[in-house]
Amino acid sequence: MKKIIVQKFGGTSVADTEKIKNVADVVIKEKENGNDVVVVVSAMGHTTDHLVKMAKELCPNPSAREMDMLLSTGEGVSIALLTMAIQAKGYDAISFNAMQIGIITENIHSKARILNIKTDKLRKNLDEGKIIVVAGFQGVTQEGEITTLGRGGSDTSAVALAAALNAERCDIYTDVEGVYTTDPRIVPNASRLDEVTYDEMLELAHAGANVLHPRSVETAKQFAVPLRVRSSFKSENDGTLIKGVERMELYQPVTGVAADLTQVRIAVCDIPDKPGMAAKVFSKLASENISVDMIIQSYAQKVSNTNDIAFTVTKGDMTKTLSILENLDIGAGDVKVDDNIAKVSIVGAGMIDRPGIAATMFKTMGDLGVNIKMISTSEIKISCLVDKDDAHKSLKALHKVFNLESEITADVKGDLPEDN
Amino acid sequence: MKKIIVQKFGGTSVADTEKIKNVADVVIKEKENGNDVVVVVSAMGHTTDHLVKMAKELCPNPSAREMDMLLSTGEGVSIALLTMAIQAKGYDAISFNAMQIGIITENIHSKARILNIKTDKLRKNLDEGKIIVVAGFQGVTQEGEITTLGRGGSDTSAVALAAALNAERCDIYTDVEGVYTTDPRIVPNASRLDEVTYDEMLELAHAGANVLHPRSVETAKQFAVPLRVRSSFKSENDGTLIKGVERMELYQPVTGVAADLTQVRIAVCDIPDKPGMAAKVFSKLASENISVDMIIQSYAQKVSNTNDIAFTVTKGDMTKTLSILENLDIGAGDVKVDDNIAKVSIVGAGMIDRPGIAATMFKTMGDLGVNIKMISTSEIKISCLVDKDDAHKSLKALHKVFNLESEITADVKGDLPEDN
Repeated sequence: MKKIIVQKFGGTSVADTEKIKNVADVVIKEKENGNDVVVVVSAMGHTTDHLVKMAKELCPNPSAREMDMLLSTGEGVSIALLTMAIQAKGYDAISFNAMQIGIITENIHSKARILNIKTDKLRKNLDEGKIIVVAGFQGVTQEGEITTLGRGGSDTSAVALAAALNAERCDIYTDVEGVYTTDPRIVPNASRLDEVTYDEMLELAHAGANVLHPRSVETAKQFAVPLRVRSSFKSENDGTLIKGVERMELYQPVTGVAADLTQVRIAVCDIPDKPGMAAKVFSKLASENISVDMIIQSYAQKVSNTNDIAFTVTKGDMTKTLSILENLDIGAGDVKVDDNIAKVSIVGAGMIDRPGIAATMFKTMGDLGVNIKMISTSEIKISCLVDKDDAHKSLKALHKVFNLESEITADVKGDLPEDN
Repeated sequence: MKKIIVQKFGGTSVADTEKIKNVADVVIKEKENGNDVVVVVSAMGHTTDHLVKMAKELCPNPSAREMDMLLSTGEGVSIALLTMAIQAKGYDAISFNAMQIGIITENIHSKARILNIKTDKLRKNLDEGKIIVVAGFQGVTQEGEITTLGRGGSDTSAVALAAALNAERCDIYTDVEGVYTTDPRIVPNASRLDEVTYDEMLELAHAGANVLHPRSVETAKQFAVPLRVRSSFKSENDGTLIKGVERMELYQPVTGVAADLTQVRIAVCDIPDKPGMAAKVFSKLASENISVDMIIQSYAQKVSNTNDIAFTVTKGDMTKTLSILENLDIGAGDVKVDDNIAKVSIVGAGMIDRPGIAATMFKTMGDLGVNIKMISTSEIKISCLVDKDDAHKSLKALHKVFNLESEITADVKGDLPEDN
């Protein structure tokens, strides 16, 4: 049986018909390698922006169901066009949207999770020698409602398809050459990593390395799908392979550093010091599908028997979060919002057994005069919340102090992240 | 039980967000009349042209399946936007594409016919008080392949939905005020008809009155769905009602005149004078889904025992027709093409019992010096093929001679026909 390779191309890779022809060449090359190929594409370039603009003209707060109906048309266009481009080069190809395949999601609009993917139609068409082009970012509920997967949706579609088809690999084509030790737009001598582990990539992704959305990395880890991040336009190197096998020796305690400027800190003051208070706050947020990142509960030091809880959410969820907190009847005090923050993180599977990494991080930032507002750690990551203005200089200093610099300067253009 | 009104709005009626808001008002007005409302919409204005242009850039002759995948996205956009516009005005509404409803068609791409429409989802949502917005022009096969209905597709979607739902009426909103005695762009004092019969409308439609595609009228006649053609923008009159009941008295023998400039005449010369030759030609054309309009077989007058057969097809089918004829091994001679033709027709249920109508038509054209190349008649129509240059002057003269002129000059703008 042939090996199956799933490829994913984002919106910038299919932004116009010339770029679509280029993508067709990349797809055909993989087919010519003797593999079965399933291609996942996002909507063309600025399609989504254009659709959202029209929606806002009609309705200040459009229903999530109709937004999903609207936005899912974008991928409908790109799959048909890419399929035509492949056919024009003499190869057999066929496009499918999520409804046709049966990419079944939960019944939540605008950020649904994939429950399962039917593979019979895919396998049948692969067996007939066809290249299959699938609409990313979208799904369908058991009841036939169209859903979208939210941020990182197309990457997640690709990884989930690779898992369902037991694919050899999932190649995420993007406008950068791979995963870097840090953001090369900020630190020009960032090095491209040949390999990282799922866990490292997850921490890097959560920490703001926008190459891959953490959801897709989590799914890849769960189903042990090897992921490769590579450039749509350059093919001089194989990009970065993300996989589960740890390297035999960890030369570097720290694999990468990242800054995330998309979060806001919300502090709920004077929460009564009773059991279950934190659970009330966070279970309500979770039930509304709001992801909370760092959480700190301060030590109850006041005579008033109250606690302060601070946490971070993405800017997009801020309004919803505040409205939930307002309606939460737990007898708490003021809610304070700080959007002038950034999260700076260092990530590396090698830091587990090496003491002093955290100390080096804090000292480096202290020497720069950077004030650390919150700290959170995992086994392979340390994150510090700092003032937004301090993020980039912290990043540069940490990149240097942990020996991540490359001999050559990365040649990276384009805006990250891609549209979905 | 409430009455169901199906409304259809074409591409020019939903060309931008301002026009979509206007359509939302028209829809809501019908809902406020106490009716259940199902709205069928085409793709926005020039969407289809834009999609076709990109497809041609990628592939000179794109596959019909992928063209259907591509074009069906157009209605996906307009249904979501119109639904949002209705919701923004405080009414409950929901959009469905053909796949979600189950508008089942035969398995032919680019001009599929509707086989049946599932109504359970529609009835459920109407019962919940929702206004339903449906994508016109598209269907789905039993196997889940997306199809499009070809020319007049959205009108046909609307009429078929009205039939399936046993609707009170199907209102076709367009950029003209109704059906006229002839094309008001050519004859400014054409009169708007208050009522016409299905048969008259069918003959007018076939004869080139571009207001409604004959397919939609045929479907309306078959299921006795009253059709109303009316303006999206003006509401001073009720447009034209098309229905099955004949008027008690036919004041006028001729209801309308029309010119069709979209056909070409193809003549196959020197076909052996044996039984079954015509059947061979036309059954092959039919199997390739080419509609033939006028057919004339000349009387075998030559010593060679051969016949000439001439017929007309639409320009779009010309290349395909010629290639079929080329490969048709019946021992015929040359194939001649004449694209400098127009079909001028007079239509009226009242001409059945009135002798001399045909004679008046031929005399009127003869007096103008117009040469008639082919004649074809039905019970309620007479069509003459003439040189293209003679079409409009024939139309004007016939309109006058059969007393169809209005006191007022029609105020008609915009290009006919609408996109689909």
